[in-house]
Amino acid sequence: MDKAIDYARRHGERFVEELIDWLKIPSVSTDPQFSDDVRRAADWLVDHLKAIGFQKAEARSTAGHPIVYAEHIVDDSRPTVLVYGHYDVQPPDPLELWESPPFEPVAKDGALYGRGTADDKGQLFMHVKAAEAYLKDGDPPVNLKLIIEGEEESGSNNLEPYIEQHADELAADVVLISDTAMFARGVPSITSGLRGMAYCEVTLEGPSRDLHSGVYGGAVENPISALARLIANLHDDDHRVTIPGFYDAVRDLTSEERQTYRELPFKEKEWLADVGVETPRSEKGYSVLEATSARPTLEVNGMWGGYIGEGAKTVLPSRASAKISMRLVPDQQPKDIATKLEAYFRENLPPTMKLRFREHHGGHGVIVDTSSPAMQSAKAALEGVFGVEPYFTREGGSIPVVAEFKRILGLDTVLMGFGLNSDAIHSPNEHFGLDRFHQGIEASIRFMNAYARAEG
Amino acid sequence: MDKAIDYARRHGERFVEELIDWLKIPSVSTDPQFSDDVRRAADWLVDHLKAIGFQKAEARSTAGHPIVYAEHIVDDSRPTVLVYGHYDVQPPDPLELWESPPFEPVAKDGALYGRGTADDKGQLFMHVKAAEAYLKDGDPPVNLKLIIEGEEESGSNNLEPYIEQHADELAADVVLISDTAMFARGVPSITSGLRGMAYCEVTLEGPSRDLHSGVYGGAVENPISALARLIANLHDDDHRVTIPGFYDAVRDLTSEERQTYRELPFKEKEWLADVGVETPRSEKGYSVLEATSARPTLEVNGMWGGYIGEGAKTVLPSRASAKISMRLVPDQQPKDIATKLEAYFRENLPPTMKLRFREHHGGHGVIVDTSSPAMQSAKAALEGVFGVEPYFTREGGSIPVVAEFKRILGLDTVLMGFGLNSDAIHSPNEHFGLDRFHQGIEASIRFMNAYARAEG
Repeated sequence: MDKAIDYARRHGERFVEELIDWLKIPSVSTDPQFSDDVRRAADWLVDHLKAIGFQKAEARSTAGHPIVYAEHIVDDSRPTVLVYGHYDVQPPDPLELWESPPFEPVAKDGALYGRGTADDKGQLFMHVKAAEAYLKDGDPPVNLKLIIEGEEESGSNNLEPYIEQHADELAADVVLISDTAMFARGVPSITSGLRGMAYCEVTLEGPSRDLHSGVYGGAVENPISALARLIANLHDDDHRVTIPGFYDAVRDLTSEERQTYRELPFKEKEWLADVGVETPRSEKGYSVLEATSARPTLEVNGMWGGYIGEGAKTVLPSRASAKISMRLVPDQQPKDIATKLEAYFRENLPPTMKLRFREHHGGHGVIVDTSSPAMQSAKAALEGVFGVEPYFTREGGSIPVVAEFKRILGLDTVLMGFGLNSDAIHSPNEHFGLDRFHQGIEASIRFMNAYARAEG
Repeated sequence: MDKAIDYARRHGERFVEELIDWLKIPSVSTDPQFSDDVRRAADWLVDHLKAIGFQKAEARSTAGHPIVYAEHIVDDSRPTVLVYGHYDVQPPDPLELWESPPFEPVAKDGALYGRGTADDKGQLFMHVKAAEAYLKDGDPPVNLKLIIEGEEESGSNNLEPYIEQHADELAADVVLISDTAMFARGVPSITSGLRGMAYCEVTLEGPSRDLHSGVYGGAVENPISALARLIANLHDDDHRVTIPGFYDAVRDLTSEERQTYRELPFKEKEWLADVGVETPRSEKGYSVLEATSARPTLEVNGMWGGYIGEGAKTVLPSRASAKISMRLVPDQQPKDIATKLEAYFRENLPPTMKLRFREHHGGHGVIVDTSSPAMQSAKAALEGVFGVEPYFTREGGSIPVVAEFKRILGLDTVLMGFGLNSDAIHSPNEHFGLDRFHQGIEASIRFMNAYARAEG
């Protein structure tokens, strides 16, 4: 292990250069115009894995973007770690708010700026480099399998069938993922809970064509106003979601869990300053941390209708639309919640409107047992790197595949994330601290070693 | 007059070909990328006016798009008619809903399809052709002045100063405008009232950057939801506008006026079928016609925020915006109403949001005396063309210049419109019936003759 750590330290700069090469490929999975780039990003990874010594590395076709599978099997007696990650990235818009081009990564003030630096190419690449550090001089202490998808940012539609079809090949002892955040800068943590998601899109259709607002305004209901009313009423004054049955299946926080939340070194003022707001707005009775990780929420991710260009156009539009996502906690079912949202819209739809409703994608929330050998190995690895004991925390984001790995392969997942909430993932100026990139490589090296001993 | 009418009938086909040439120039005034085309459309008109014999025709520069001025002065003893119109057009989007390209006009089923066919190039061109029919063999019975602007669809910002600066040159006895609609197909009408307008744009700014909706959702207020609430509350359940003071200055309808409305041959079922809705939605206590022409209204013309592209993006956006226009009736003041809208937003703004408020443009509503020689001449002209007596009606749209001609030049305006509400102006597939184009030319010829006698 020490040799591997030493190797990683000596080749750190080259690792960053390689990552930059990969980040330059704009693998935006949600927008069809980038599909060739998504394919290129998969091929780049396959070539790289072969070059550093993996026994097998292939881009496997799916109905959507390819899944990269790679493996390096040392010995049946050793435990097998299945590393999951994704090589696709979020769309870069709004482009005008980036201080440097999203697909021309630059290092500035100790961080690498560019789309995918933190989410997830940069974090995933840490495990690739940890593997290289072992492979350079022999074998890693564990058998390694990698499953790297290209559709995480667009719903992972083809991942679940792939795992089902390749369950034997993917057999392992634990899943390792770095696609989450540390609790705070210098405060390492392991994610023991994730929220699920239901993502839907609604369109209200009113008049059969766009109308002149002077000629028809005041006698034909405006779809924007009708949709605004429906969206406004999705939350009550306590910022609770009003959809009937929304909270029915929610697993309440125990008083122990709430105590744990209170002990975390959370600095609300800094948190608020970072996002640029003066007051938080969370569900009544819950703290910011609880609301963003252990309570279900609903957000409108986009809304549009009518004329949205420069200047003025006097139109009464024929339709208005919104994208709405709900973050779920155990034991809410994504399908059930999407159905309840649709029912809310149908039941409150004014008679002047028609509704079109569409589900984009969903996933279950999870909570992981923190006492397992894998979780304890991760804890030891982080302590080795940072010199302080990491926290176990629940996180607000969604990684639906964690629930799928449990359901299909029976595997628990170690979520060892090195992001920070201030990394601006999904936003302009996404970045990843280079210190965390190197710490992540060392933590991955240490985890493989600790887990081999714990399970060996 | 008969000779002019005969000439116009014989050259009708050529007139349509000339109009098509002009319509092909995409003179979209609100979008800077079309500014060269706007200029080209002005130059085309100037060349055309010279060619048909106007003594003077010039494109006059303004701070924005040029104003075309032309005149043909026969004799000081004759009355002078000032024709106003606009050569700019609305943006063509959404492009995908056009059945033929907006700037490649085609005749189909007796109508000409294309942007600007009805609003206003096609209607304005009727007066140009009426002038040609007289000029061909001598002089028109009236002195003619034309003021044709290129910014009607983007707020007419430079028209009012132009009129102020050129008041002497523009001196006349009456203004003639064709930029409104007939009451219905085969039911000629003269517009005796117009609504004013206040057009504003609001932006709510929440967090200082776009946030990940999984990480921050549930603890940071979403600008889309906040704006949706403010927009939803702009109308009450009776569909009245809730802005404090909005109705203060409104001139109520007299019982006589309401009786006139009831006598109009309005077919609500056909009207609803045309716009594709089953039930109207108008201010409680007012009919569809009253609500769309004699009552003030508020419409959201556009709203946008967050991710509005294909697929799904889990963003909690930093801002959300809306374009809002209010149609005003006498004696509401556009500036006062815009100020009241801003106050509504400021007073109801949640503490988590900042407001940016911007006024686009405005104009006063008007009501014209129907017993004047000019209005009676227009009535006689339309009766001559259609064989039935026209109605005097109020219209829901806004032509702010009508109030400016009164204020600056002391002139009343005859609004002799040949559009139909079903012409889809401001919408995809705008069109103008060729029968109405030819009727309009004849009505203009007849009006000039009748008005010369009435004022002569």
